[in-house]
Amino acid sequence: MRDFSGDHRWLSLNTATVRKQGDLAQIIEASARHGIRAIDPWRDQVGAIGLDRAVRAVRDAGLELSGYCRGGMFASDAAHRIEARDDNRRAIDEAKALGAPCLVLVVGGLPQYSRPGSVASKNLLEARAQVDDAIAEMMEYARAAQMPLAIEPLHPAYAADRACVNTTKQALDICDSLDPKRTGALGVALDVYHIWWDPELLPQIVRAGEDRLLAFHVCDWLVPTRDMLNDRGMMGDGVIDIKRLRAAVEAQGFAGYSEIEIFSNEWWGRPIDDVLRTCIERHRSVV
Amino acid sequence: MRDFSGDHRWLSLNTATVRKQGDLAQIIEASARHGIRAIDPWRDQVGAIGLDRAVRAVRDAGLELSGYCRGGMFASDAAHRIEARDDNRRAIDEAKALGAPCLVLVVGGLPQYSRPGSVASKNLLEARAQVDDAIAEMMEYARAAQMPLAIEPLHPAYAADRACVNTTKQALDICDSLDPKRTGALGVALDVYHIWWDPELLPQIVRAGEDRLLAFHVCDWLVPTRDMLNDRGMMGDGVIDIKRLRAAVEAQGFAGYSEIEIFSNEWWGRPIDDVLRTCIERHRSVV
Repeated sequence: MRDFSGDHRWLSLNTATVRKQGDLAQIIEASARHGIRAIDPWRDQVGAIGLDRAVRAVRDAGLELSGYCRGGMFASDAAHRIEARDDNRRAIDEAKALGAPCLVLVVGGLPQYSRPGSVASKNLLEARAQVDDAIAEMMEYARAAQMPLAIEPLHPAYAADRACVNTTKQALDICDSLDPKRTGALGVALDVYHIWWDPELLPQIVRAGEDRLLAFHVCDWLVPTRDMLNDRGMMGDGVIDIKRLRAAVEAQGFAGYSEIEIFSNEWWGRPIDDVLRTCIERHRSVV
Repeated sequence: MRDFSGDHRWLSLNTATVRKQGDLAQIIEASARHGIRAIDPWRDQVGAIGLDRAVRAVRDAGLELSGYCRGGMFASDAAHRIEARDDNRRAIDEAKALGAPCLVLVVGGLPQYSRPGSVASKNLLEARAQVDDAIAEMMEYARAAQMPLAIEPLHPAYAADRACVNTTKQALDICDSLDPKRTGALGVALDVYHIWWDPELLPQIVRAGEDRLLAFHVCDWLVPTRDMLNDRGMMGDGVIDIKRLRAAVEAQGFAGYSEIEIFSNEWWGRPIDDVLRTCIERHRSVV
């Protein structure tokens, strides 16, 4: 397991962590100021300053990307299927332009939440089948662009509205089904927040292996959690044994960034320099 | 699958659903008034009016029990282990006195939440091992009292603070390990709120079989969920396909009560007769 205590070479900042404190250009500037070497930007943040400007800002700051957030939201009714497909193709194009190593997929929950305006459904099995089909279709475009897709299993608390892929096993079942030869076109993005509770987790990380482990995200699970979406904790403030999980992915050969992604009303209310200083300190002490 | 549309013979009321509207005696009176045939009372509600009075009230109203809530909260540090054991033995004695068909077990999360005052830990694997050991020990006392234990897997959102058994598979693994001969001493209580998202659910219900299916609870998952603990929905108001899940347990031979358990700040704020009328109506239409 790599020693993170001496520096923050392997810290990446998911830009949602400080989305309320500035635009993407300002976040990139702050990252550079704190010696952060990589980011994972969100599409809406890129869109807000324009793709060309984002590409230049990343390049000028000498940043790497640890991923691009995000494609997905596949489940929809028939009327919204083309929209979903085209939207995901644009996400691949943007990821390519930005030099991202993978596009993170949050697959969507039930159609009415995944693609608003879709006819409402309670059929989670059908949503899951749609996700399989949509990723299969998307892979053709992604292969042509040489952009790996990283399926992110989301905590079961988000099964209805954000992602009906809720365990690492489920994500890997999709990978094995659609990319049985393990070509590198498909893998998983594992976020400790979503997976720490899973009794099947450790054997599934072994099953994933280095080639399927495309990204590793960290934050913490707070008790109590006061908001289902925006009360994620700073690493060390919650109950997740983060080092144990990082040890498990690194035992498989994962040697990429440890990406900090915190959706938090609390941390969004603090100055960006305070947040980044705390991220760096916790990266060195508890990640 | 049984037809519930004509009456509410198989509706049981978990008394937590109306815990803010009155004491257990008042809830029993209201249940009788609405032709409800069974309840599942909570220990604190029994304690508040006294066990003897609770036993008499249940008997005088001609009610059955569909379970007794609850034993468990096993994970603790060494200093709290005797407390946990004795507390669970008392729960068995009370369940017996009340004529409950099973004692529901919510197994507890990490020790500091499960048995407050315990030394804090982030070791979920150790908590799970403790749960296995504690249920094994508890089974001796439960067997002597002929009181079946029903392990309730809780939604992964409660893994830290309420239950580190989070899937039906995990609960059944414990059953198979501790009661391999399927004597009836150990089974599961399945609540749609906790299990609806699980991609492994349907095969695990088949695996459970009739003899392990000791209880079936219903409510609904709301989107958005505004409170992690106390924003469960009335059946029909959320995203769970309840009939599909009831069909799955009944296909295994389950023929017991469909128990309504709703923790909800919203429903706790309404008059008890309104809540029970709505429960009955939804039991007939969407359960």
